[in-house]
Amino acid sequence: MCDICVMNKVKERMLSRRDLFKVSAGAAAVATVGAAPAALADGHGSVMDMTHVYDGDFPTFFNEPGITYDQKFNWDEHKFNLFDLTIREHTGTHIDAPLHFSENGNSVDEIPVGNLIVPLCVVDIREKVDGDADAQVTPDDLQVWIDANGDIPDRACVAMNSGWASKVATPDFRNADDEGTLHFPGFHVEATQMLLEQSSAAAIAVDTLSLDHGISPDFATHYEWLPAGRYGIENLAGLDQVPEAGATLVVGAPTHKGGTGGPARIFAMV
Amino acid sequence: MCDICVMNKVKERMLSRRDLFKVSAGAAAVATVGAAPAALADGHGSVMDMTHVYDGDFPTFFNEPGITYDQKFNWDEHKFNLFDLTIREHTGTHIDAPLHFSENGNSVDEIPVGNLIVPLCVVDIREKVDGDADAQVTPDDLQVWIDANGDIPDRACVAMNSGWASKVATPDFRNADDEGTLHFPGFHVEATQMLLEQSSAAAIAVDTLSLDHGISPDFATHYEWLPAGRYGIENLAGLDQVPEAGATLVVGAPTHKGGTGGPARIFAMV
Repeated sequence: MCDICVMNKVKERMLSRRDLFKVSAGAAAVATVGAAPAALADGHGSVMDMTHVYDGDFPTFFNEPGITYDQKFNWDEHKFNLFDLTIREHTGTHIDAPLHFSENGNSVDEIPVGNLIVPLCVVDIREKVDGDADAQVTPDDLQVWIDANGDIPDRACVAMNSGWASKVATPDFRNADDEGTLHFPGFHVEATQMLLEQSSAAAIAVDTLSLDHGISPDFATHYEWLPAGRYGIENLAGLDQVPEAGATLVVGAPTHKGGTGGPARIFAMV
Repeated sequence: MCDICVMNKVKERMLSRRDLFKVSAGAAAVATVGAAPAALADGHGSVMDMTHVYDGDFPTFFNEPGITYDQKFNWDEHKFNLFDLTIREHTGTHIDAPLHFSENGNSVDEIPVGNLIVPLCVVDIREKVDGDADAQVTPDDLQVWIDANGDIPDRACVAMNSGWASKVATPDFRNADDEGTLHFPGFHVEATQMLLEQSSAAAIAVDTLSLDHGISPDFATHYEWLPAGRYGIENLAGLDQVPEAGATLVVGAPTHKGGTGGPARIFAMV
């Protein structure tokens, strides 16, 4: 199609879809549906924002603020605004690069671009999480997905939907018990092994604070997955609003050199 | 198309395109071409990374390091790696949110998702920049683009390609003279006014350190564009490798609450 034809088609679709724009904001979450430009959206009708908004109150694994703001310039005094931010890399919706749990793995800026725009497989374990906050994605759960949808696509991101994202603005997201042990779902190390052996999945993703479930004593899943050169996504939003199969995840990983991960903007083309 | 059909198509295309993957890394730049999953890429053959990798040596407007790293956990001692980062928001390839140059404009987390996945218009002023580092995108330059490609598409990002990205690892990127005045291209305020009056462009983008050219005494373009609720992108990479029209820009703006901007991962679907 010629450039002008594409542009006209874009314009037509944007106009006709403008009324589709809506924001369904959770407490601290943006889960926004937007119309995608037509040229991008052949086969994709909309864009889902899979990213939480975060600030110093966003829950973190170590229960310390993940970001602090230092306002260096402000409107009243300088007629422009600017902050210096101090950010713990593993805050908000973020990437775990291979380097996070390995000696010499790829840093976040070294993840190949081809592994950042990938098919999204959503493994729904909400039913078994109901009543068991320590539940995990197991090989059986992966097999249920495969039986329904076919093999895990090449370079896919396999995401756990535990329903946890809805708790993000509450203490139930960390869900610490009286001893301080955390209770939230994650990937069982055996599911991780199955993906390593039987797929070329680029990433696993969770809607909780850690690839491992909260009570993990040893971060077994982190140590299995990341040193193998794959990457992880934690605190993913919006999984309730995308299909089990067929969406494409666009992972806006940060590019600070040598980083072990960092906050990322993530979209799903549905 | 059914999910399995989509997946199989994805797999076939990914396999057949795997040999297309290549990295054309400039000094500090990633300009990576990757194959896009088929379901996303109907009409789009590849993904261009439009993002510079950055660290404390990346050039900044104020000539101070834009990022510092504090390694809180390291492999030898803790068996995992993690940094706390201090980042000036306007560092690397980054967003200028309306709030950056207005009292109450949208913060970076408030930019609508529909304005982050947009048609890309590339205005090539490399010829007039050759010999004039202070050159600007003018209404005439925009008209040349329109004459060749049709109206500026709805919600577009209009990007200046001045050829400046190739200088990013050298002092020529800031290009300070003996008095410390910077010399690099930017948008003329009249071009900005033309876009405000005649288009619904969501963003303007530059391959330099500032929306205004370096010698600007008054940030006229910042003050015209950002308070109008539009946003900017600075230090965009890869503009030499995308077409003037027809690509779709995916802008992975950060989501720290209330931010005036911040480093962003940006892709072009070509």
